[in-house]
Amino acid sequence: MNAGSTKGQPMIETRPQAKLLALLRDEGPLSRVELGERLELPRTRVAAEVTRLGELGLVEAAGPSASRGGRRSTMVRLGGDLRILGVDVGATSVSVAVTDASCEVLAYTVEDCDVRLGPHVVLGRVAALAEKVREQAPGRLLAAGIGLPGPVSFAEGMAVAPPIMPGWDRFSVRDHLGALLHCPVSVDNDVNAMALGERHAGVARSLDDLVFVKVGTGIGCGIVIEGKVYRGAAGTAGDIGHIRLDDTGPACACGEVGCLEAYFGGAALARDAMALARGGRSPFLGEALAHKEKVTAVDVGRAAEAGDVGAVNLIREGGKRLGQVVASLVSFINPGMVVIGGGVAQQLGHRLLAEVRSVVYRRSLPLATGNLPIVLSELGETAGVIGSAWSGTDRAFSLST
Amino acid sequence: MNAGSTKGQPMIETRPQAKLLALLRDEGPLSRVELGERLELPRTRVAAEVTRLGELGLVEAAGPSASRGGRRSTMVRLGGDLRILGVDVGATSVSVAVTDASCEVLAYTVEDCDVRLGPHVVLGRVAALAEKVREQAPGRLLAAGIGLPGPVSFAEGMAVAPPIMPGWDRFSVRDHLGALLHCPVSVDNDVNAMALGERHAGVARSLDDLVFVKVGTGIGCGIVIEGKVYRGAAGTAGDIGHIRLDDTGPACACGEVGCLEAYFGGAALARDAMALARGGRSPFLGEALAHKEKVTAVDVGRAAEAGDVGAVNLIREGGKRLGQVVASLVSFINPGMVVIGGGVAQQLGHRLLAEVRSVVYRRSLPLATGNLPIVLSELGETAGVIGSAWSGTDRAFSLST
Repeated sequence: MNAGSTKGQPMIETRPQAKLLALLRDEGPLSRVELGERLELPRTRVAAEVTRLGELGLVEAAGPSASRGGRRSTMVRLGGDLRILGVDVGATSVSVAVTDASCEVLAYTVEDCDVRLGPHVVLGRVAALAEKVREQAPGRLLAAGIGLPGPVSFAEGMAVAPPIMPGWDRFSVRDHLGALLHCPVSVDNDVNAMALGERHAGVARSLDDLVFVKVGTGIGCGIVIEGKVYRGAAGTAGDIGHIRLDDTGPACACGEVGCLEAYFGGAALARDAMALARGGRSPFLGEALAHKEKVTAVDVGRAAEAGDVGAVNLIREGGKRLGQVVASLVSFINPGMVVIGGGVAQQLGHRLLAEVRSVVYRRSLPLATGNLPIVLSELGETAGVIGSAWSGTDRAFSLST
Repeated sequence: MNAGSTKGQPMIETRPQAKLLALLRDEGPLSRVELGERLELPRTRVAAEVTRLGELGLVEAAGPSASRGGRRSTMVRLGGDLRILGVDVGATSVSVAVTDASCEVLAYTVEDCDVRLGPHVVLGRVAALAEKVREQAPGRLLAAGIGLPGPVSFAEGMAVAPPIMPGWDRFSVRDHLGALLHCPVSVDNDVNAMALGERHAGVARSLDDLVFVKVGTGIGCGIVIEGKVYRGAAGTAGDIGHIRLDDTGPACACGEVGCLEAYFGGAALARDAMALARGGRSPFLGEALAHKEKVTAVDVGRAAEAGDVGAVNLIREGGKRLGQVVASLVSFINPGMVVIGGGVAQQLGHRLLAEVRSVVYRRSLPLATGNLPIVLSELGETAGVIGSAWSGTDRAFSLST
């Protein structure tokens, strides 16, 4: 079954093979006739490529197609035993999913893990979790994708000068994790992975141009243009967390002052919530702090739900600042959709969304906002692992060189 | 010579023909062997397409190529008598150039013309100027491109709800100008055209990702991604002039308040310069106003050159606000270059550039600014006509449908 492979990995030999696999991933089973039409290839060529991919174990027959008059064509689909790993490394947690070759999640797990423990510890945990989920959905592992909470050199497969990840700077995640998992690994920024997840399996399905805004411990943004992640000249596109709103604003973890992230996001929210609780300006948060060491964004969300004015104002102020930045982005890039996600955004939910919408619809060009949906992430905490799995398939289905 | 053409226009019949023409435009003369390699086509196919394009008068022989061992290959180039028109409609002027098929300017003219006179008058002037420049560089007109100072539906070839262009809303510039010039016409936003001009013939040559910021009467921005203009979901991408900086700022021509354009750009600068002159806070501008009805951005530039403190401060304040917006864009899109152009930017020159640079380098991510050139337009007032001519060739060299 692994004919033509090295280390268990199949070798994609021709561009049509790569395109064919991506097509089956994106559209599900197709007949040979449809494949020929979509790939603009003669029938005999399609048949030969399908046969070869069958020998590699990458595709399989899926019964006869519906008749379009004339002889029925055989349906072709991706191999049912193919597996992809999707990994999402957050500041304080690691999530791992195993998916089929169409990035459908078959098993998923998440555990607390501090990214500051460094790449050896964290990637070791990733490998252990991968083993666990793979047992729940056994099959042939083709590739893995991993998202990291910092700037990533996609081409080199490593984080570059990440502010909150000591020990990770230029550490080859691609090579190290590849050796642990015995498969090719695609490495990207976590927000880019989330954007891809929503693009391919979530609320932005089939949309070619979108912006995914993550509000987690930090704030970032993934940009999808013509269906692909846009990384920019140095790979930092979307790094809106450190757009400076005020030269005299609060200190940021990056060493500067007045960054968006220093005003809003999980860390800033926890800081402000603690101040409210201690200052007696929020009964709900004060009560919460009486029972534990610290209050976080989760408590702010709960407090706001309970109608706590201090908490509601925190979300309103933060949402306003986030909205100002998003409004500029909308005027600038005119996306087809804005998706708001990430752990903190999920906690704050529609209250945050309403604030962002109000600022963007008021501040951006009417032409740019006329048909612009601003929505919450649909995939929630699995957006990152699904998007990473997607990048994994892109790696697996690319031409071997 | 016009075999296979309708109304004098050649019909591009195959995708390889279209690619071949674009390749010759972008790279100059190539041998048949090189064409085959670049297009990944067999030699016989290249020969057949070259012959066909020769019959259509679109390409011609250019002597033997340098030997690479073996038989010499014939060089092929674009027909030397082919002509393209590039048109740039500004708020108060119209520029027209005639170029060869590689967008090299052969003749150029500009005259004052108020865009508010409406499409019939303005496009009539364009046709008259086109006739004038074509006399200076006769040849066979293939296509024209035109840039308009407002939001444009590129697909429909018309302006849509342009704020400063009464009478132009949804007027088919493509059809009307096409009928006047007897050739296909490509219609775009003026700033997109300028960005394309710098991308293909100016300071950003060979750069795939850049942002062109125009400071003219208004402020706008053209975004080039992977070598192509990025227009966004509704075609408004780059409209940074109406990013709102302050909810209580000055009134803008668009009907809102606090837009970037209401603080800076030609109109705002003229307003502030008049106030300085009348208020006695600028000796230079006061002196200028004594001799004419009004002072403009040109006078501000001259006053600053002469060391007038009031004028210098105007540029500094405006540059700071522009810089804030550009800093956000740089964090967001991480371009490979920022080009500052447009009539007012040319008047204010390096003083404005220095201010923008200082804000961007201070406010944007170090990773995004590390290798980021922020430069003045190289083509100056011809950026728009060259970019428009480029769009014209794209129209001429596309597959006929």
